[in-house]
Order: sequence, then C-alpha cells, then structure tokens
Amino acid sequence: MTVPAEARDRATRRADTLAMLGTPAIDVWVATASAAGAPHLVPVSLAWVGERVVVAVEASSVTARNLAASGVARLAVGPTRDVVMIDALLEEAVDVAADDALGEAYVRQADWDPRGDEGYVFLTLRPVRVQAWREANEIPGRTLMRHGRWLV
Amino acid sequence: MTVPAEARDRATRRADTLAMLGTPAIDVWVATASAAGAPHLVPVSLAWVGERVVVAVEASSVTARNLAASGVARLAVGPTRDVVMIDALLEEAVDVAADDALGEAYVRQADWDPRGDEGYVFLTLRPVRVQAWREANEIPGRTLMRHGRWLV
Repeated sequence: MTVPAEARDRATRRADTLAMLGTPAIDVWVATASAAGAPHLVPVSLAWVGERVVVAVEASSVTARNLAASGVARLAVGPTRDVVMIDALLEEAVDVAADDALGEAYVRQADWDPRGDEGYVFLTLRPVRVQAWREANEIPGRTLMRHGRWLV
Repeated sequence: MTVPAEARDRATRRADTLAMLGTPAIDVWVATASAAGAPHLVPVSLAWVGERVVVAVEASSVTARNLAASGVARLAVGPTRDVVMIDALLEEAVDVAADDALGEAYVRQADWDPRGDEGYVFLTLRPVRVQAWREANEIPGRTLMRHGRWLV
C-alpha cells in the first residue's frame, strides 16, 4: 500500500483536469446505457473543444445509438488513480464530413482522422458534472462542476 | 500516429488477459446502469478469484444498487490501448465480513483491506464475454470468451 500524496485543492484539480483534457492523443472511457438498462463501455480518442468532449464513433455503434436515445453518458479520462469523471449530455451528433471546424479541432488533438471514414459521426458532449480524484484521500472535494457550472 | 505492433493471436491475448487480471493492485472500470437507463462508471480494485472478478464496494453505492437490480456490468481492465473488456453477471453479493475465504483471496491481490469497513460488500462477477485489443488492428479476433466459454 503506497502512502498517497497530500490531497490537491480544488483549484489545482481544475487546472490538472483541463490540462488532462487537452492532452494530445488522450482517450476517454465512454459509458452509456440502453433503454433496457444494459451498460456499455468503450475507450475512444477525445478532443476537448470549447469546453466540450468530442468523440468520433460509427453512427451504428452501441455508443452512438445509446446516446441518440438517452442523451446521457458518463466519461472517465486518465488512469484509475488519477481520474477525471464527467457526467455529460449529448449536445450534437453530426456526420464527420459535415462540420469542417469541428473536424479540424478534433484532428488537431486526436491521433487519427475519421473524416474519410464512411458512417462516422462526431458526438459533442457537454459536461454537467466533473469530479477529479487520485486516491481515497481526494474523495472529499472531488466535485469541480455541478449542473454545468464550475464550482472553482 | 504510432505504427501498431503486429496483432496478437487469440492464444496470446488470452494469456495476456489472465496475466493482467492476476496483477497485484490492479483496478477495473465498472460500468453499470440504472433501470431508468442512467449509466454509471467507477474505478475500483479487483481480485481475480476462480475465474471471477471480485470487487468491494459500499452496499449503498450506485454500483452495488445497479447490480442488485440488473445483475449486469461491463468491465474494463488495463489502459485504453491495451484493454480487456468483460461483460459480466452478478453471481453473488456478500458482506465483506461474511466470507473468510473470499476476503483472504481479495486481500491477497488488492492493495487495501475492506473487511473492517462497515457496509461494504464483495461483488462476485462472472464473465460471460471477454474481449481484448490494443490498437485498431486487433479489433478482428478480439473476442476470447462468448456465452461464458473461452473460445481459445
């Protein structure tokens, strides 16, 4: 058992969170659920564009279909002991060829380019709750955004 | 963009999967859903005991309540580009003080001991589908277990 570092304050966690979300070629775990309550989870590349998480998936994928139906996802970025958890709402789903500015922004951060791939969509996800913690001593104070507003 | 290594065959992926699941102090992402279709996701420590994933969570947690109601979880172990994805069914939920053998097995692998913590339960999750991949070139052949049976 390792001794955890001192718990970060919330301002530090917000800065660390924004730095992590802007990291080139970083991935996000996207958890969604079907109307029948079946959980789904996949890792995909993200871009952080205008305070939104943008991912590119096949329009026919379970993730895209769950989000189209429910509008809600829970996202995790970072390793299990330095995690940013985000509850997010689907703001927009567009064909990857349909929005040049979004495509450029996505490709600038991600390490692949989906724009030539038939049937892919960009999903723009708006964070409504953001939490960040490393070890158990950071569970208190982990909520950095609530109802779509930064608390710090 | 990095050039991916050659795709592993399924026997290698199964061996890598079992090695990963047996790693000391390794965590698992647990995705569950409420009956209303709200996705949940948390990272927790796992033990791999008798071909089951065992985690310890508060009985009152969203994860425990979702699993009690739905019986189903989707699990991810490993980083986003060396992932083991497991669809699993809840086999048993027991108070952490109630099963000595399970408690010993859990503590042997995990790096914390929940047995003194009031209100915690061990959830034993039985894999029914296991998939493993690193990069896009390993999407073909990613399914290693289906309907609870290893394919390789």
